[in-house]
Amino acid sequence: MNIIIDAMGGDNAPAEILKGAAAAVREYGVLVTAVGDEAKMRAALVAEGVDAAGITLVHAPEQISMCDEPTAAIRHKKDSSMVVGLRMLAEGKGDAFVSAGSTGALLAGAMLIVKRLRGVKRPAIGTVIPGIEGPYLLLDSGANVECRPEMLNAFAVMGSVYMERVMGRKAPKVALVNNGAEETKGTPAYVQAHALMKANPRIHFAGNIEPRDIPAGAVDVVVCDGFTGNVILKLTEGLAKSLVGQIKNVFLASAKTKLAYLLVKGGMRDFKKMLDADEHGGALMMGVAKPVIKAHGSSNAKAFKNAIRQAKRCVDGNVVGAMAELLADAPEADA
Amino acid sequence: MNIIIDAMGGDNAPAEILKGAAAAVREYGVLVTAVGDEAKMRAALVAEGVDAAGITLVHAPEQISMCDEPTAAIRHKKDSSMVVGLRMLAEGKGDAFVSAGSTGALLAGAMLIVKRLRGVKRPAIGTVIPGIEGPYLLLDSGANVECRPEMLNAFAVMGSVYMERVMGRKAPKVALVNNGAEETKGTPAYVQAHALMKANPRIHFAGNIEPRDIPAGAVDVVVCDGFTGNVILKLTEGLAKSLVGQIKNVFLASAKTKLAYLLVKGGMRDFKKMLDADEHGGALMMGVAKPVIKAHGSSNAKAFKNAIRQAKRCVDGNVVGAMAELLADAPEADA
Repeated sequence: MNIIIDAMGGDNAPAEILKGAAAAVREYGVLVTAVGDEAKMRAALVAEGVDAAGITLVHAPEQISMCDEPTAAIRHKKDSSMVVGLRMLAEGKGDAFVSAGSTGALLAGAMLIVKRLRGVKRPAIGTVIPGIEGPYLLLDSGANVECRPEMLNAFAVMGSVYMERVMGRKAPKVALVNNGAEETKGTPAYVQAHALMKANPRIHFAGNIEPRDIPAGAVDVVVCDGFTGNVILKLTEGLAKSLVGQIKNVFLASAKTKLAYLLVKGGMRDFKKMLDADEHGGALMMGVAKPVIKAHGSSNAKAFKNAIRQAKRCVDGNVVGAMAELLADAPEADA
Repeated sequence: MNIIIDAMGGDNAPAEILKGAAAAVREYGVLVTAVGDEAKMRAALVAEGVDAAGITLVHAPEQISMCDEPTAAIRHKKDSSMVVGLRMLAEGKGDAFVSAGSTGALLAGAMLIVKRLRGVKRPAIGTVIPGIEGPYLLLDSGANVECRPEMLNAFAVMGSVYMERVMGRKAPKVALVNNGAEETKGTPAYVQAHALMKANPRIHFAGNIEPRDIPAGAVDVVVCDGFTGNVILKLTEGLAKSLVGQIKNVFLASAKTKLAYLLVKGGMRDFKKMLDADEHGGALMMGVAKPVIKAHGSSNAKAFKNAIRQAKRCVDGNVVGAMAELLADAPEADA
């Protein structure tokens, strides 16, 4: 298996990206094609003492920044690491593409270069979020600020395939985010989406989920529009960070509390690990015709390695093929 | 000052409601008119040994339950504690009304019986939420699942008045929830709301706030539609509860970790107090012509006492009068 990576995307590119790639080669037995500025990639490999076995470098002199307007960047920066990498994926020169670069550009590039699955009007970003009872998948976590009911219904199908094939959940439970359990709750689009999902034989629909119950991880797939999904994703991150910071302050207060920390260190480490989004890699662009994965912009080597592991699991499980099959005979998804 | 209360609303009515009322009479020097089933109220006062000095009982035999359809309940249950209490408020027989009953019914009743301020199409629910740097006001936290830009702009004005007059914030900072800092972010309604708020001389607009930054409490007033607000409110509650539960597990793991807990007990108590929504009382129905406050459905005596304190502060600060003044010459709020 050959995973194409954007070696220039993200806050810590190219050094951490390449270190993560080298670790993925060793641990998962994949081959990696690293696309980026060749001189910079070589310099980073030498500076970090990275063993480049299994990594092929492909030169792409341009770079898309976080400030570039997404669609314009994809159209005009033809020699950027992201565009070259996506083109290689579209041409079958690799099995998946992973980037820690601009989410907007990656989404636009995936749609323009790799294309969508039939039945998908707009891809969604599916993010795995740590939950108390285990991680859950949130989609759309930010691609589409407004979603029609048919889109939400398609997200439910794609999310189920992902949780089953990548995360190994049997008969994954799907719920629709809403401000109450009754099927009449929410905006007209949510009421309609509820009806579509309830009638959808391809998913295991658990009804509406109230936001209070999301963090526990009681369901496997949490469906909502991208505006709401962005709120859930970012508020979860922000709140977990704030609370962990507050608890740290409690332990730093005095010599006595510092001693207490030594006594609970192991448990607190497990607790922080549970909250660590890096453990779960990146976000799959769901509805794109081949696996395109967005790693977190602040990815370090470990996070990027995990995003490659996720790409490998998507390929191993033929996730995109299974989504294509289930969506092809669901014409309403493109209504 | 005379605060009218719904003695039958909420999970712990009437006992905890009346205990909270008696504490409020003692601590804040207010008078309370308790509306509800007189026999049940008297029995609760006796059973709990509550000193009823300062509390006047008004008999209202009917009760609105959480299962009643809100508007129908208000129209048909004329002798319910909620309807009788709201009517007394409308007729000037008290200065504010506090209920821990059904949010939907209270909202419908406030609109139908107490009426709206000029310039307000639909009232919003304003909830004070604990933040790391201090509490902030979230509105709309659940009344209107869809909001037009003019409504969001009116919420900004009302929220500012509240934070200034009730919470004592000078020049309160207002922000619009959005999925990015740029003024072009979000749905068309949010883009327009941003423009209206930016041009509004009555508020101190700090631009968009990303959900990640909300828990810190960096701004005083957080404005969004009620669907998003419900997600923020309930996800914050659920996540805080889940994380506190996890930390508790860390401390319960062994004799060693239990010892650690003894060493940090004080700090953890302060931490939990910071997260305690009961500290901040209830939610003001913003845009109603007189102060109507929704206490949490699960209110205990302390939470209900604090909701009465909040009602007193609203009356003391003439919050509704100030809102009326600022909204009266803003015709766009009712566009």
